[in-house]
Amino acid sequence: MDQEDQKGEVTLTQFLDAVSEGSATPGGGSVSALAGSLGSALVEMVVNLTLGKKAFQAQEAYLQEILQKAHRHREALTATIVKDIDAYQEVMKAYLLPKTNEEEKKRRKEEIQKSLRRAADPPLFTTVTSLKVLKLCLEVMEKGNPNTISDAAVGALLADAALWGGMFNVLINLSVLEDKKYVQKMKKELKRLTLEGEKIKKQILARIQEKINLE
Amino acid sequence: MDQEDQKGEVTLTQFLDAVSEGSATPGGGSVSALAGSLGSALVEMVVNLTLGKKAFQAQEAYLQEILQKAHRHREALTATIVKDIDAYQEVMKAYLLPKTNEEEKKRRKEEIQKSLRRAADPPLFTTVTSLKVLKLCLEVMEKGNPNTISDAAVGALLADAALWGGMFNVLINLSVLEDKKYVQKMKKELKRLTLEGEKIKKQILARIQEKINLE
Repeated sequence: MDQEDQKGEVTLTQFLDAVSEGSATPGGGSVSALAGSLGSALVEMVVNLTLGKKAFQAQEAYLQEILQKAHRHREALTATIVKDIDAYQEVMKAYLLPKTNEEEKKRRKEEIQKSLRRAADPPLFTTVTSLKVLKLCLEVMEKGNPNTISDAAVGALLADAALWGGMFNVLINLSVLEDKKYVQKMKKELKRLTLEGEKIKKQILARIQEKINLE
Repeated sequence: MDQEDQKGEVTLTQFLDAVSEGSATPGGGSVSALAGSLGSALVEMVVNLTLGKKAFQAQEAYLQEILQKAHRHREALTATIVKDIDAYQEVMKAYLLPKTNEEEKKRRKEEIQKSLRRAADPPLFTTVTSLKVLKLCLEVMEKGNPNTISDAAVGALLADAALWGGMFNVLINLSVLEDKKYVQKMKKELKRLTLEGEKIKKQILARIQEKINLE
């Protein structure tokens, strides 16, 4: 995707086409960031369909705060779609460095390791931020317009997919990293984030099933 | 979204903005369809990064078939983004019908019921088709280029979110339907689809954890 596309000006069809192609980017990392972004947009929608309604007047300030947070997360996650592409292209560049002598080989190896470590940042950001979005989904489900329950529920599904998708993309990078101490630290952090996410998702599913269920 | 947008020509930013606004469409139904579409695009990506590689030559025909299926599902799910908007707008129109006398009230009630029943079709399609996409994710995970495991995994997360998101949107419509026999039939079908989805997701997660895990 070129400079123009980097401003989120690519169409849905163009983005889907770019994902489907046989190139490494945009791939699962960018799609995870977009999923988080869609989750945040649904939180904003629920708040916007709640604000101004008499029954929710007492919570106006609280809802405005959620709206602003969700909007910030959405913008940051949308920016991460491109950051993931850029970071991965640096990895591919490092792999293409010459390796005709020992010095070059050493340099190439160092560059690969450095770029892989940097490439773990965008998907880690996606995981961390999507956990925040998941928390907002629970909040709007509890305090927002009950007519929007299915929109908040889909927001939670997307935020949850983004949380896990980011994690898989960090893990795939870690698997090639040689700094085992750093790898262990990151895995511990990812485990904490996913456990927290699972706890919130359980609460969300219980709340949905009070309203809409298969029985 | 206007006529131009209906061709998938809306940008990512425009779509996210439209979701976030305080209008009922596009909402969770359209986002679910897009999630399924993104899942299919990732299946195509994995196949395209596998085809042509010597190690996978024996499976060329099989992979081509998956590629075509995924592409068809992607196009159908992308079209469902707009179909969901149109169907829900018919529901809103029905609610706006006059109700000044008994005859009008009767007609309005019938139109609401009819439009709600029709509005369950797009999200049901999303659920049915995303289950198919989920199955393709498992297939490419087993037969595709192992370097793309995280992309196939994210595809599965998105397809799974779409399957459940579609279901929530069908259920929210069913909750207002008076034809209890139809509602029970639909719930039975949704239950079958989600149980099948859960079985496949379990297999997918086991396969991912062989390759990338938190330990």
